[in-house]
Amino acid sequence: MSGKFISIEGIEGAGKSTQLQFIADYLRSHGKQVVVTREPGGTLLGEEIRQVLLKPTDQAMGEDTELLLMFAARSEHIKQVIEPALKRGDWVLSDRFVDATFAYQGGGRGIDEQRISELASWTLQGCHTDVTFLFDLPVAVGQTRVEQRQQQKDRFEQEKQAFFERVRICYLARAKAEPQRIKLIDASQSIEAIQQQLSQHLVQLVDNAAL
Amino acid sequence: MSGKFISIEGIEGAGKSTQLQFIADYLRSHGKQVVVTREPGGTLLGEEIRQVLLKPTDQAMGEDTELLLMFAARSEHIKQVIEPALKRGDWVLSDRFVDATFAYQGGGRGIDEQRISELASWTLQGCHTDVTFLFDLPVAVGQTRVEQRQQQKDRFEQEKQAFFERVRICYLARAKAEPQRIKLIDASQSIEAIQQQLSQHLVQLVDNAAL
Repeated sequence: MSGKFISIEGIEGAGKSTQLQFIADYLRSHGKQVVVTREPGGTLLGEEIRQVLLKPTDQAMGEDTELLLMFAARSEHIKQVIEPALKRGDWVLSDRFVDATFAYQGGGRGIDEQRISELASWTLQGCHTDVTFLFDLPVAVGQTRVEQRQQQKDRFEQEKQAFFERVRICYLARAKAEPQRIKLIDASQSIEAIQQQLSQHLVQLVDNAAL
Repeated sequence: MSGKFISIEGIEGAGKSTQLQFIADYLRSHGKQVVVTREPGGTLLGEEIRQVLLKPTDQAMGEDTELLLMFAARSEHIKQVIEPALKRGDWVLSDRFVDATFAYQGGGRGIDEQRISELASWTLQGCHTDVTFLFDLPVAVGQTRVEQRQQQKDRFEQEKQAFFERVRICYLARAKAEPQRIKLIDASQSIEAIQQQLSQHLVQLVDNAAL
């Protein structure tokens, strides 16, 4: 019996954190060792790169530079965390993986998808998620949730809403192109309804892994 | 009249710093605006990445991670420094460029050349040096010079000597494959003899640029 690699994806306010915990608990209650991790980050070096990426500077960082840094962090994450865990037979549950780069940098920022694909192939060398849960909901609904959660209004300006619309469209296109791997979850439902939908997928996943 | 992009390469002790200054002076005395820069580094972000690369940690950094970080710094260097300078018509003189990655990470550390090539193509997008001066000399001679310069003995252990032998072999193979671009300079000569050899190339370069 080998481990599985699961990622969760979705725009802000899709409820990823709540469901991440649910999935981890579900798998553990079925006897799985689960490594919970996140991107960007997941390693000491990855967190340093994250700081370089997020630190405000006078000069705008080049798009290619940003992509190379993201994939540098991802490469380290794969080598130090994901691959060793899977080799041990553990399950890996990551808050975001490569689909997020296509959605945010590709869809959101408009970087050429082909260029992202090339760098993804170079870096991942076949490392891929067995299942990705895409928590999808209308951008406006996600925004409302984030605003309520953070007690802040107007966190997202009009430009940002358009950005997240593009991110969502890209995520949905990827789910359509890879329905076997990417499971679309209607995140506008109640938490309980979402967890019921998730459970159906998780039952299958755990059963298949036991074969 | 457009600017030219020149890099200088070579193992430790080849006298790059002295000749870098000579080349810059030569070009300036011929009316050229010269931007002198270096790799890794050359930009604020590049220097930060350099720190991430050089900082000692408990965990060995993955080879791919290191390559991605190097090319991230290089991408930024191209976008922020090299391309804008060339567009202005300035000449760019860089202490190391992509040939060093092939020589040190490829030849020295044994990373697959094809993988470096793929990342180089992705990042450089056609950006290349017009001329690269390769300062070549036997590794032992370079070591002796470095030891004298630093007042230290035994700086290079046997393992490091073998490493630099591989770096040198890779540099020479590249010069052989691209004789038009990479000018081999015998760096075991006297400084004056080297500068005479350099001058012959520089005369041509400045004349051609004026056409």
